[in-house]
Amino acid sequence: MASHNAFSQSQEKEFIEIDPWTKTQGSGFLNPPYGLPSKYEKDVVRVIPSPPPTFLTASRTPLQNLHGIITPNGLVFERHHAGIPDINPDQHRLAIHGLVDRPLIFSMEDIMRFPSESRIYFLECSGNSAAELKKASNQSVQQIHGLLSCCEWTGVRLSTILQECGVRPEAKWVLAEGADGAGMTRSIPISKVLDDALLVYAQNGERLRPEQGYPLRLFLPGYEGNMSIKWLRRIKLGTEPWQTREETAAYTDLRSDGKALQFTFPMEVKSVITSPSGLMKLKSTGFYEITGFAWSGNGKIRRVEVSTDGGATWGVAALQEPVLDKALVRFRFPWIWNGNPAVIMSRAIDTSGEVQPSMDSVLKAKSANTFYHNNAIQPWRIAANGEVTNGR
Amino acid sequence: MASHNAFSQSQEKEFIEIDPWTKTQGSGFLNPPYGLPSKYEKDVVRVIPSPPPTFLTASRTPLQNLHGIITPNGLVFERHHAGIPDINPDQHRLAIHGLVDRPLIFSMEDIMRFPSESRIYFLECSGNSAAELKKASNQSVQQIHGLLSCCEWTGVRLSTILQECGVRPEAKWVLAEGADGAGMTRSIPISKVLDDALLVYAQNGERLRPEQGYPLRLFLPGYEGNMSIKWLRRIKLGTEPWQTREETAAYTDLRSDGKALQFTFPMEVKSVITSPSGLMKLKSTGFYEITGFAWSGNGKIRRVEVSTDGGATWGVAALQEPVLDKALVRFRFPWIWNGNPAVIMSRAIDTSGEVQPSMDSVLKAKSANTFYHNNAIQPWRIAANGEVTNGR
Repeated sequence: MASHNAFSQSQEKEFIEIDPWTKTQGSGFLNPPYGLPSKYEKDVVRVIPSPPPTFLTASRTPLQNLHGIITPNGLVFERHHAGIPDINPDQHRLAIHGLVDRPLIFSMEDIMRFPSESRIYFLECSGNSAAELKKASNQSVQQIHGLLSCCEWTGVRLSTILQECGVRPEAKWVLAEGADGAGMTRSIPISKVLDDALLVYAQNGERLRPEQGYPLRLFLPGYEGNMSIKWLRRIKLGTEPWQTREETAAYTDLRSDGKALQFTFPMEVKSVITSPSGLMKLKSTGFYEITGFAWSGNGKIRRVEVSTDGGATWGVAALQEPVLDKALVRFRFPWIWNGNPAVIMSRAIDTSGEVQPSMDSVLKAKSANTFYHNNAIQPWRIAANGEVTNGR
Repeated sequence: MASHNAFSQSQEKEFIEIDPWTKTQGSGFLNPPYGLPSKYEKDVVRVIPSPPPTFLTASRTPLQNLHGIITPNGLVFERHHAGIPDINPDQHRLAIHGLVDRPLIFSMEDIMRFPSESRIYFLECSGNSAAELKKASNQSVQQIHGLLSCCEWTGVRLSTILQECGVRPEAKWVLAEGADGAGMTRSIPISKVLDDALLVYAQNGERLRPEQGYPLRLFLPGYEGNMSIKWLRRIKLGTEPWQTREETAAYTDLRSDGKALQFTFPMEVKSVITSPSGLMKLKSTGFYEITGFAWSGNGKIRRVEVSTDGGATWGVAALQEPVLDKALVRFRFPWIWNGNPAVIMSRAIDTSGEVQPSMDSVLKAKSANTFYHNNAIQPWRIAANGEVTNGR
């Protein structure tokens, strides 16, 4: 109909009016020469605990504001054990010793001469989502699950460098030590090191950020974040784990019998809806794209299922290509909200066949002492007024 | 031998000495809460012309400092026609009119309610590498080829939004207009629009940077950069191209007979070695990984070949996975430099079968008036002292 082929009167007015920013010359290059987000996005930042503890130790990624699978470097979560060291890359060295034929010390220039690889991998702290094991909190997805990011990491295979040193056949474990004040140190099975461990010097195209281990970090795809030692200064090969502080006093899973499960390395299959999510508000009924992330330290994501009725029925979400090994996968699920209260949740299945568990099964499987490795399904409750809260 | 299993005396000293940054508590979260690169990377920035013209119009990506395929947002090249407008996203509108059943005006909130997609695509200015057509310059790969970047772009398919408006069957061309002071405007065939055009609101996980079109830009995968209209405010559907300033007075390929070739949209198959590249210096003989980018506006990269003897013989480079449609592809080629002068170059072949041409064939095929669309092979000359210069 001809009458349809015209703007409404109010639209016509809006259409004809030229915005003020179109009537003037815009600004030149925004300073500094290294760009920054728009001033209108000033709230899209990492959050730190409030009130901040004496020693600030973690900041969280605004998952609810992310799009796609890449986390921009300015928003990648942080976890330090003794703050961020200020390392001059020209003076930084990596020493490799222990059960090798030729102990060697490498400068950054030495390391970067070797063949490199670039891979998109997720990074998750083993303590991510941990507080939920004690008590459901009414917070944002950033506060609850924000110790999670995904970048394109570039580095040299540790196996390539170890070849230069000559690995002795009796070497079964590898010690990695950071140059931070904590001397952060972990033991890693040599099978993982020879499989896919990277000496990473760049993330998302540019050199590592200081808080991410500049100038050099270890990266263990799919393993709990703290093992990807930042500010890497030393690699030692031995026959057994070293039983360091960070694998005895911390990062173990205490069971109800008082014994601790040690060396639970891979981050198990998990997913979370980032929109709609905690503290958001749906302004009206109608179409919404439910979206979020799925990932697994054991391989690729095979399927993500979404429920909008509290788990009674499930549909299959679309996975955004490329679906990469040990990377965040963006899923999308179309939904029409009719205005009734609803509980939405996602459940991931990986190529190893593992299914993301409910919080009930996680709590049943783990003891009350459990702190790490919470990969439970996260339900979000949507009230009739559109307010979104933790659905547990 | 046992004697091999020990550091040399100087290495032993280096090994035992603990660096100063390991002896102290590091810093807390670096400010601002939105992170920045290390101070030691202060030279890794976009470059602008020197001396800067009255109206700054372009900055270039430091390709020689990139790793992997993602260009971090702070380093993505810029090209403005009237500076960067300061747009309040809450006030920004997109109008769609012309040959549609229902002309509509959308707010950013309206647009972001639609189903989204995320894709990794390159973006290249049609004037990239243009100066080389006139005269070989002894500059860096950033100065010569830096109007090139690659990001993960997130947005809504323009075809989805057009469905809301109802496209009339006689509509064959689409006009896209920017809200900058230039009112940057281009005509696009509707086939491309319905195929894969995106209304992009995010890049590399976060909202668009101001200089990239915040809050909304068009994105035409594989097409010359200027057509992906930034600060998008208006879409009109019609039967013929509008013959705007930017497709008549500019962005046409002037032939020797005085006629201009118009609407040469896709950026043809191309590659460039970014390391070693112009103005670098090889410090010693021995192993180097030759690396760079390949891309094609017509599809995927099928193969990249590298020559280290000025084009006499070629080897096949390794392509870093994932190899994505219309995205930068990172290639790597192992090389041992024996200290003799050498000329290295790369040549890309895409899935449409097109082979990147030599500069001679480009100059032969185009007229002396040609300025845009230079996809010629870039040779780099390595002198006996290791200095790298333009090899033409």
